[in-house]
Amino acid sequence: MKALFFDGGVALREDVPEPETGKGWARIRVRKAGICGTDLQILRGYRGYRGVPGHEFVGIVAAGDDGAWLGRRVVGEINVVCGRCDRCLRGMERHCGDRRVLGIAGLAGCMAEFCVLPVVNLHEVPGEIEDGRAVFVEPLSAACEILEQVPLRGDERAVVLGDGKMGILCAWVLSTVLRDVTLLGHHPAKLEAARWRGLKTALAAAGASAEADVVVEATGSARGLAEAVALCRPRGTIVLKTTIAGTSEVDLAAVVVKEITVVGSRCGRFRDGLNLLLSHPDLPLERLVTAVYPLERGAEAFGRAGQRESLKVLLEIL
Amino acid sequence: MKALFFDGGVALREDVPEPETGKGWARIRVRKAGICGTDLQILRGYRGYRGVPGHEFVGIVAAGDDGAWLGRRVVGEINVVCGRCDRCLRGMERHCGDRRVLGIAGLAGCMAEFCVLPVVNLHEVPGEIEDGRAVFVEPLSAACEILEQVPLRGDERAVVLGDGKMGILCAWVLSTVLRDVTLLGHHPAKLEAARWRGLKTALAAAGASAEADVVVEATGSARGLAEAVALCRPRGTIVLKTTIAGTSEVDLAAVVVKEITVVGSRCGRFRDGLNLLLSHPDLPLERLVTAVYPLERGAEAFGRAGQRESLKVLLEIL
Repeated sequence: MKALFFDGGVALREDVPEPETGKGWARIRVRKAGICGTDLQILRGYRGYRGVPGHEFVGIVAAGDDGAWLGRRVVGEINVVCGRCDRCLRGMERHCGDRRVLGIAGLAGCMAEFCVLPVVNLHEVPGEIEDGRAVFVEPLSAACEILEQVPLRGDERAVVLGDGKMGILCAWVLSTVLRDVTLLGHHPAKLEAARWRGLKTALAAAGASAEADVVVEATGSARGLAEAVALCRPRGTIVLKTTIAGTSEVDLAAVVVKEITVVGSRCGRFRDGLNLLLSHPDLPLERLVTAVYPLERGAEAFGRAGQRESLKVLLEIL
Repeated sequence: MKALFFDGGVALREDVPEPETGKGWARIRVRKAGICGTDLQILRGYRGYRGVPGHEFVGIVAAGDDGAWLGRRVVGEINVVCGRCDRCLRGMERHCGDRRVLGIAGLAGCMAEFCVLPVVNLHEVPGEIEDGRAVFVEPLSAACEILEQVPLRGDERAVVLGDGKMGILCAWVLSTVLRDVTLLGHHPAKLEAARWRGLKTALAAAGASAEADVVVEATGSARGLAEAVALCRPRGTIVLKTTIAGTSEVDLAAVVVKEITVVGSRCGRFRDGLNLLLSHPDLPLERLVTAVYPLERGAEAFGRAGQRESLKVLLEIL
């Protein structure tokens, strides 16, 4: 089958073997896939993954031993877990020590004609959510993870740092539960695209008008945490969304003196992302789509995704 | 009066003016003062403080407009706050934006014959707590702050990194509420001194036998957080106690991927430290005392406190 392949760089290969489905697994014919910041980081060396990339997709179940799933349109949780260990049994499947992660660790990804996942990872996409929105379920769920991790009353001031696609999704998710959310970024066009509901936007240089109770760090930059610490009130919370290769220089004394809580935040539950799409049909996801490329032009698509002014670049697999 | 003075180095001065007491303040004749890791950090440039150092003391109220306090033996909260701002009114006095901090920021410290504090900062020391224990109330309260910040059920595994005085105090405080606490350090003699109740100790090189639910980082080293991340289970909590000048290199991706919560932790409530001393008269604080020096030999005392094998060095002000 055709697939993109990470091996130092990214290139299309025509002869990648179709992935096998074992017991309880399904093979999915991928229709759309999204390029994520993590994919770009992996290309730069993060996690040392080599193989078919991609973990954001929507597709149709094409094969598998559970006939009930055949032909269904699905999205899929990206962590493939053992289901038996202590963490899996305590509701922390996404932290299973034996996990493989679609297109990130130990499992070929979705930037291919086919990918495979256990059927327990699949969620059928309701008819009213079209492919171009369903492909956002993975990053949207990751944004929803903030609500699972940080208890919010509704009257908190939140600031999101970073007007990339993850920052904007986090700002939108927070806007569904908080009245006072500000997105700070460096790109006027991206800030413009982010306008939704009462979300406030501002150039980062202007700064926030007051210290925030919650700061989401989604800059994708090693300097992001330091900026977040400066914006966060004493005893406030910083949610870390940036995953980058290498180390960051942080003045930890400021975290201690302000007694800030820093919460690392990764994948979310797909159920949350799907529910958000159903309850907020006006969520302007389309504005985040910078370009759509066919799989065959995947290398070009990665080039585009890495440009400063880009938001989400999608792959269409025809 | 005689006082130690930080001005690039540390030296005794004989001609420091006695500090004035305003309305609601008391002047305290200091009897004992402790040298803290923060004092050593300040000497190395942290916070740029210049003046009389010291924030750990026990003494006798010698003057003030509230006659009821005269002659009482006291310890004193180190943050002098406005009492009127939003933070003060919401129970976050220790984060008042206008605060001065005894011997650390804007207020002459206690390594002197006299220091001054508002009477609202004072706590009378119960007769059963002798001076040599009362002088530990400030760092012991800082260790108790962990219990205020991190909800514990009692069955958590905790690891404390760092066998300095703060690490040992944190391990002892955790041992009063958790059965499974391990102190990791680099100094066999300090680990030996730390043995109390069921506390387990081990050389850091040996590592912990399993991932911990809670890791207290009290190494005083820029590398401490990275070690704590490695020891912490996914979705576990790291309490940061180290305040050092400068920045630390941290692999933040690991914090994100493991969804760790990092909690900065500073001063505690003196009431908690005093209560712990009353409820645990067997707490072996005496083992932490490396040496006691008269104020006049303060520079020598600081040299001793900075040595690798030292724990607490006290000053006696005769």
